[in-house]
Amino acid sequence: MASMDELSQSIDRDAERYVNLLRDFVAIPSISAELEHWPDCRKTTAYVKTFLEEKLHATTKFVPAGQKEVNGKMQEIPPILFAELGNAPGKKTLLVYGHLDVQPAAKEDGWDTDPFVLTEKDGKLYGRGSTDDKGPVLGWLIAIEKLNELKIEIPVNLKFVFESMEEVGSEGLPEALQSNKEFFKNVDYTCISDNYFLGKTKPCLTYGLRGINYFFVEITCAKQDLHSGCYGGSIPEAMTDLTWLMSTLVNVDGSINITGLSEMIAPLTDVEDAEYAKIDFDVADYKDTLGARGLTKKSKEELLKARWRYPSLSIHGIEGAFAGSGCKTVIPAKVVGKFSIRTVPDMTPEKVDACVVKHLNKLWETRGSPNQLKVTPQHAGRPWIANPFNENFLAGANAVKAIYGVEPDRTREGGSIPITVLFQEITGSDVLLLPIGASDDMAHSQNEKINRDNYIKGIKVMARYLLNLA
Amino acid sequence: MASMDELSQSIDRDAERYVNLLRDFVAIPSISAELEHWPDCRKTTAYVKTFLEEKLHATTKFVPAGQKEVNGKMQEIPPILFAELGNAPGKKTLLVYGHLDVQPAAKEDGWDTDPFVLTEKDGKLYGRGSTDDKGPVLGWLIAIEKLNELKIEIPVNLKFVFESMEEVGSEGLPEALQSNKEFFKNVDYTCISDNYFLGKTKPCLTYGLRGINYFFVEITCAKQDLHSGCYGGSIPEAMTDLTWLMSTLVNVDGSINITGLSEMIAPLTDVEDAEYAKIDFDVADYKDTLGARGLTKKSKEELLKARWRYPSLSIHGIEGAFAGSGCKTVIPAKVVGKFSIRTVPDMTPEKVDACVVKHLNKLWETRGSPNQLKVTPQHAGRPWIANPFNENFLAGANAVKAIYGVEPDRTREGGSIPITVLFQEITGSDVLLLPIGASDDMAHSQNEKINRDNYIKGIKVMARYLLNLA
Repeated sequence: MASMDELSQSIDRDAERYVNLLRDFVAIPSISAELEHWPDCRKTTAYVKTFLEEKLHATTKFVPAGQKEVNGKMQEIPPILFAELGNAPGKKTLLVYGHLDVQPAAKEDGWDTDPFVLTEKDGKLYGRGSTDDKGPVLGWLIAIEKLNELKIEIPVNLKFVFESMEEVGSEGLPEALQSNKEFFKNVDYTCISDNYFLGKTKPCLTYGLRGINYFFVEITCAKQDLHSGCYGGSIPEAMTDLTWLMSTLVNVDGSINITGLSEMIAPLTDVEDAEYAKIDFDVADYKDTLGARGLTKKSKEELLKARWRYPSLSIHGIEGAFAGSGCKTVIPAKVVGKFSIRTVPDMTPEKVDACVVKHLNKLWETRGSPNQLKVTPQHAGRPWIANPFNENFLAGANAVKAIYGVEPDRTREGGSIPITVLFQEITGSDVLLLPIGASDDMAHSQNEKINRDNYIKGIKVMARYLLNLA
Repeated sequence: MASMDELSQSIDRDAERYVNLLRDFVAIPSISAELEHWPDCRKTTAYVKTFLEEKLHATTKFVPAGQKEVNGKMQEIPPILFAELGNAPGKKTLLVYGHLDVQPAAKEDGWDTDPFVLTEKDGKLYGRGSTDDKGPVLGWLIAIEKLNELKIEIPVNLKFVFESMEEVGSEGLPEALQSNKEFFKNVDYTCISDNYFLGKTKPCLTYGLRGINYFFVEITCAKQDLHSGCYGGSIPEAMTDLTWLMSTLVNVDGSINITGLSEMIAPLTDVEDAEYAKIDFDVADYKDTLGARGLTKKSKEELLKARWRYPSLSIHGIEGAFAGSGCKTVIPAKVVGKFSIRTVPDMTPEKVDACVVKHLNKLWETRGSPNQLKVTPQHAGRPWIANPFNENFLAGANAVKAIYGVEPDRTREGGSIPITVLFQEITGSDVLLLPIGASDDMAHSQNEKINRDNYIKGIKVMARYLLNLA
């Protein structure tokens, strides 16, 4: 059996081939948002299926993802690829998830190079999907191929779920998982490599995501929009009430004024608190990058907590009011304010909805307005948290340390990655988010890239992680 | 010379001809908002020019209204018609203004009949322009024709300004007036018949209009829109500040919280106060018609004052925030709140602008937000007020009394009719707003109409008014 050093050297020797594999993969424009590219989504999935079967000797199956109406016609959604490799009774089972579709991209959007021609420049591999998520998916396949080639036994059974509708909200995935519960029964660990380092260079493991509760606040003052000249001053206006109601929700420092909400937040433990100081993050650089006029917190630790482990409330806008340029002298009759709360453990969608509805209705009573208020909770998603020191994370952390020579930061993210909660729920197992790309990879944007170094090191990290799971 | 009774009877005898004249006039679709109908605007103007010259023996001239870019091409705006009738040195001079263009209309918009075919039903003459403003314009021409026919001397010299761009903001009119100051030099009175009774049956004379000051309040928190998941909680958000700022401006009862504003309001005199009790206006019916959830005032008198003689503040909307349907999880980086104040004597655009800018900037200091505020006054128009008991109004009131048998209500309006202030300023003379149509005539809307009775009585009122100006 080869040593760990030999493993790394062997991967380095094949680096050019791995870049070429990524080039072939990026060349298929698997844009899930565009129906005419659904055949490319299927093609990418077939490519991975063949790789799994022919090179890794995995067993695979297509799971139908259902149908969807596009432009008034029902369309078959590209299927989801399930695969299994190894079935040894004594071994634990790891589930790997990745997605094969990409965001739309065109040279005219402002790309410096053709987005579907992988182009290397200054050690960076530019191309749509290079970092989100084709590079990481190939990383897994290559790592396993290399371990097999070097006859290094993989100490876990492997299962795979690869979809090609992630960028349009994982159409059909939840249903496909639900109707294949048997497949996920023995899963002990899940690993997803579909996010990014917090910064540009230091690796991290992600152990938490915020959830979201979205609300509509509708206020009605009349049966139709009115001319502000003819009617202004004679009726209590809906916009006056709505701006008042929304203005009370959150303070300049970001703290939320909703009775009962802060009581739901899981207390900060010493172990968790200690992690923040170690994290590689520059407050001034953050402020500068956003062009922010100010920040709610001064210290790195407090700012990261405000983004990750405490809830936030954002007012997104108003439907039904005048939103165009120029001047319009309307009294809007019915306006819908929209805001959302990013939630954290132990907040649940149900408790937050109840709390917000109750708070707003109670607040409204103090207003003394004859207008009509209707608070309607919209979609909600649960926050996710893992123990960043469990077996799965330790395997990841040791792999990163071996390859990068540094202990990875334990980070959370402020947004949601709904598939994380989905896999956590369907497998009942720990999920590890193991990013291999950097924060400046520009996923979803122009000139998406993955650094050649991150890509190759990522393959090594993945191989070591598999071995560490023993 | 014929008696007043004979005058009325003679008009009644010709009623059918007058309806047919209106039918011909309405048949020309002089829609100023649509370039392809500008020839119809010219045709309508030519029709009036011919009537003035051939039937009334007036002298006329076209005054160019300049050019305007439409769809990227410079277009000659239909000219304005100036006319004069009588030049006796001993007589006073009355200026009559009217407009010959109409709002767009199509059967498909929900009209019960062809909008350009005058159709009588239950004593109502349906057709675009019937009440706004072709009926009233014809009223003037017919009244003068009838007085001439009956050899009743008109005791004033007459001047006319008829435009056909009123519905698109009187394009070119201010410049045309300014460059023809000589024409307006001797004008003693101005009469405009381009508004409506307060209710459906009782006539009124209008002596006041509110002005307007429009404001943009821009708040910037970052250099581009941000994802509320990734960044929510870390920066003070522009929407939070903007809703707060706007929510402080006005109370549920409609009162305005801007320091220094109420001090500008001209005090209510006993004479003016006494007028409100007489006015025919039903509060419950008003509330019902608007489908309003509530009103700011309970009594008729206070409600009318709130609409007409006190300022009001309306928040119209926000530019730059999410305004669509559905859910979007954006933190808008730059938002522009839009509100306007309807102004009353003795508020001036300059004083109001200065007061609002100062107030908002001072208020902003108390917010403690690092974000950037920019308050930008937009267009402004002066309020207008006349003495409702001056010679011009008395002539109008006596004419109405003679024809309708009731003293007209002295009313104001809450909106602006910019041409009123324009003529007040260019002539330096009293303006009388003398409506002949009813509040339910649906000007600008589907199924615009003028009641046959109002149209014919309006001709009589106009004739009597001319004689009363002696």
